[in-house]
This record gives sequence, structure tokens and C-alpha cells, in this order.
Amino acid sequence: MKNDYIILIGGGGHCHSVIDVIEQQNRYHIYGIVDKKENIGNKVLGYPVIGDDEDLPELAKVCPKAIITIGHIRTNEIRVKIFHLLKKLNLELPTIISPLAYVSKHATIAEGTVVMHHALVNANAKIGVNTIINSKALIEHDVTVGDHCHISTASVLNGGVTVANNTFYGSNATSKQNIIINDFIKAGSVVK
Amino acid sequence: MKNDYIILIGGGGHCHSVIDVIEQQNRYHIYGIVDKKENIGNKVLGYPVIGDDEDLPELAKVCPKAIITIGHIRTNEIRVKIFHLLKKLNLELPTIISPLAYVSKHATIAEGTVVMHHALVNANAKIGVNTIINSKALIEHDVTVGDHCHISTASVLNGGVTVANNTFYGSNATSKQNIIINDFIKAGSVVK
Amino acid sequence: MKNDYIILIGGGGHCHSVIDVIEQQNRYHIYGIVDKKENIGNKVLGYPVIGDDEDLPELAKVCPKAIITIGHIRTNEIRVKIFHLLKKLNLELPTIISPLAYVSKHATIAEGTVVMHHALVNANAKIGVNTIINSKALIEHDVTVGDHCHISTASVLNGGVTVANNTFYGSNATSKQNIIINDFIKAGSVVK
Repeated sequence: MKNDYIILIGGGGHCHSVIDVIEQQNRYHIYGIVDKKENIGNKVLGYPVIGDDEDLPELAKVCPKAIITIGHIRTNEIRVKIFHLLKKLNLELPTIISPLAYVSKHATIAEGTVVMHHALVNANAKIGVNTIINSKALIEHDVTVGDHCHISTASVLNGGVTVANNTFYGSNATSKQNIIINDFIKAGSVVK
Repeated sequence: MKNDYIILIGGGGHCHSVIDVIEQQNRYHIYGIVDKKENIGNKVLGYPVIGDDEDLPELAKVCPKAIITIGHIRTNEIRVKIFHLLKKLNLELPTIISPLAYVSKHATIAEGTVVMHHALVNANAKIGVNTIINSKALIEHDVTVGDHCHISTASVLNGGVTVANNTFYGSNATSKQNIIINDFIKAGSVVK
Repeated sequence: MKNDYIILIGGGGHCHSVIDVIEQQNRYHIYGIVDKKENIGNKVLGYPVIGDDEDLPELAKVCPKAIITIGHIRTNEIRVKIFHLLKKLNLELPTIISPLAYVSKHATIAEGTVVMHHALVNANAKIGVNTIINSKALIEHDVTVGDHCHISTASVLNGGVTVANNTFYGSNATSKQNIIINDFIKAGSVVK
């Protein structure tokens, strides 16, 4: 099954969850993790930190696939910056979908986006690039999620909602149907 | 696997989700969709709108199974009216259960009810007719849900709760145990 | 598959859910249920009540495995008392994990703990003894849950949270990341 190597960018807590997804998916070998210079040589769930951002041009020559595993709570600034750097380096950013998630065949998901364990992306949904659909999130029918978003754990986007680029949608938040959501939505919110 | 045809009544957003469930279930061919007269000839996720309500007597002669795919938010009036019409026409209303949902073998679910992706109906639960158990809804042990209800996305009915007929239980709502719930419960409510 | 007998201690609503998990797991035969004296001879989802607490020393001689199926809402006092009694009687308390749950191989779960249907225990999580991880609960990466806790239905513990021993974490509650939680958290709370 495993037919390709991938670099993970960011070695914190979100990286732990993404490693779990990649291992369950059993499609990619993790080549190593890129993190801060002081962490080089450390291990993250058994995988070595092999360099920092400055090493990316060299790493891109030996491993042409990467995924961003930095979290996104207060800001997605670093995730967006890295995304554009990876594109400039011609790295391929696959879509990573947990085999424990469900993505409708009528949905589309763009590059660099991860769909974590027990998430559900329903019919006719469209998800942009470099977005996190976190564990147990529910993206209902006809929802559009923009680029560089974080749809947090166990949150619910009901039918027909549009989520603007760069939105943080907090853990276990709920939305009405057919509304527009942007900016920063706190955990547990009900958005009307 | 597919051994029978079924008509879907209602071609809106909820229909998209039900189509996804029926396709994953791989048990029924979708014969076509009944919607407003002005939509006849349109397609919904690739399936044709083949008639409106007035065509149901004729359609019932060629396709003896149907499921109601109209949503239920403010009112279930149309869903109830169509349910009685379909019964009068002797249409069979199967129970549709997503293969990605879990229904305990100790639970019972009545005709015309749909259990959507990632829903869970636990031991000793009883669900009435023409009810929507929506995506990721949790129906815990010993819950009774009446007829013509909508238990919305990611909502939680805890152990021993009784839900009256015609109830709308909002998205991501939560209940205490062993209480009675009826009428209209807003999204995100905690019902005590 | 089924290679061993197990006694269930407590015949109420939570027991119904645990029976469903054990049946789906298909690993243990249910030897019988221990409940109040007046319930001896009754059946719980088809399994007989075979004794009360006072019969445990005798029962331990014929069936060396047990799991506590008493609920925990206001207090876990009885669950803790029984746990220590079972240990004193040298009963083995297995970890019961629903085949419909997901537990990361990077997580650890101690004895006597049950992980119910559709729960998710993510990478690097650690769960103590005699704890209930209830249906659809989400335990994110790097969470630590202590002993004798109840993480209720559909609740969310976000990354890096620490839950103290004896905590009740209510249904559909949500937490911030990296905080400490203890005592009694109401259903639907957002804990900061």
C-alpha cells in the first residue's frame, strides 16, 4: 500500500493526530518532520525531526511531497506562509483523508487539506486548500469551506453554509443552515 | 446488492444527503425524484426529477417504494401530509439506514425513517415512523423517539429520553437523561 | 472469537450500552449480571441477574473477569467501592473497547475502562482505570484522563487536556486545549 514518502511540517500536537491518520491510511511513509532548529534530532511519535524551514529547498529535492502539520488556533499566518513556500518549491501537497472519516463521492477536497478521524464531509460539499477538517467535524451537504481554514474538532457546519478563507471555526461549534461564516468562531458557539 | 427501485419525494438539500446514504447502502436504485412541477426535467446529483405530487398515483403503479426526502426545520407539515398520501397509495416506505451508521440489534426503527451517516442508535431505543435521524446524531440507550420527528445533525438524546411525535430537536442539542422532549428545540440547546 | 466469560456489575441503563458493546466486540460471553437482591432472576437484554454484591466472592471463583456497568452521574462512589472490592477478590477487569470506537495505537487505556461505540481516543492519550469513555466522546491527542472518570456521551476533550481522577465530564461538553479539568462539568459546558 505505502508507495510514497511525505514530509510533515510542524512537530506539535496537531502533528501527533496527523501521524495517526497517515499511519492508519497506510499510503505514505513519513520521511521526517520539519520543526524548529532546536528540535532537530528529537523524535515525534518515533519519527525524527530532520530539519527546519531553511532546509526545505534541499529536502524538496529528495522528497517531493509534504503536508503542513502546524496547528491553527489564533492565527493561520504560519500555515499560509509555509503553504506558499511549499508551492514555490514545487512540493506536491496531497489531500490526506483518514480511512475512519467519510467523504462523499459528491464532495471535493483541494490540495494540502487533511480530513481527520471520524470526520464527515457530506454530498456536494467543497473544501479548499490547506484546510484542517478536524476529528469528528461534520461538514453537511452543500457546504463550501474556503482555503486555509480550520474546522475544529466535533464542530458542525450545517447544510449550505459558506465558510470564508482563513476562518477558524471552533471546537463543537454549531451553525444554522445556509449562512456565511468567517473570521474566528469560538469553541461551543451557535452561529446564526 | 441493489434489488429494488425507490422514489425520493423532495429534491432539496436533505435529498442530497439521503441520496448519498442510499448510494452507500447500495440496496436500492433511485427511480427518480418527485419535486415541484417547475423542476421536472432537472437533475439532483444526477437523478432526474420525474414528476410532482400529482403524479404520485401513476408513479406508485410502476415503483412501489418511496422515501420522503423533504427537510423538516420549522414545520413537518408537508412531510406528514405526504406520508399519509403515500400510505393511502399503498406505497411501501422502507427504513433507510446508512452503512456508516450503527443501529443496535436491540433497537427498533419504524417505516419511512432514515438513519443518516455516522448516526448511532443504541440499545433498547425505539424510533417511530417518518423520522429523520440526521448525520452524527446520537440516540442513547432506552430512548424513545416518536413519529414524524427530526433529530438533527450531531444532536444528543441521552439515556431514557422520550421525544414526542412531531418534535424538531436542533443540531448539536444535548439533553439530560430520562426527560420528555417535544415541540421545537433550538440548535445547540441543553435541555433539562 | 468469544473465549472468555465476564460478569457485569450493575443492570441499569449504562449496562444496556455496555452489553451492546460486548456483543459487538464478540470476545466475551456474558456470564450474568450482579444487581440489587430484588432483581435476582430478572433479565437485562436477555441476560440473567445472577446475584448481588454479597455473592461476588462466590462468583469470582467461577468467573474470574468482571466489568462495572453502573453509571456515574452525580457520584462515582459506588463504582469506586466496587472497583476496590473486585481487585481485592482478584477479579480481572479487562479493558472493553467497542469495535466501532477508534483507539490510537499511540494511546494507552488502563484496566476496567470501557470505550463505547463511536468514541475516539487519539494519539498519545492516556486513560486511567475504571473510567467510562462514553458513546461518541472525543479524546484528542495528548489528553490524560485519570481514574474513575466518566467522559460522557459526545463530549470533547481537546488536545493536551488533563482530567483529574473522579471527574464527571458532562455530555457534549467542550474544552479548550491544554487545561486541567476536575470535579463535575455540566452537560453542554464550554470549559476554558
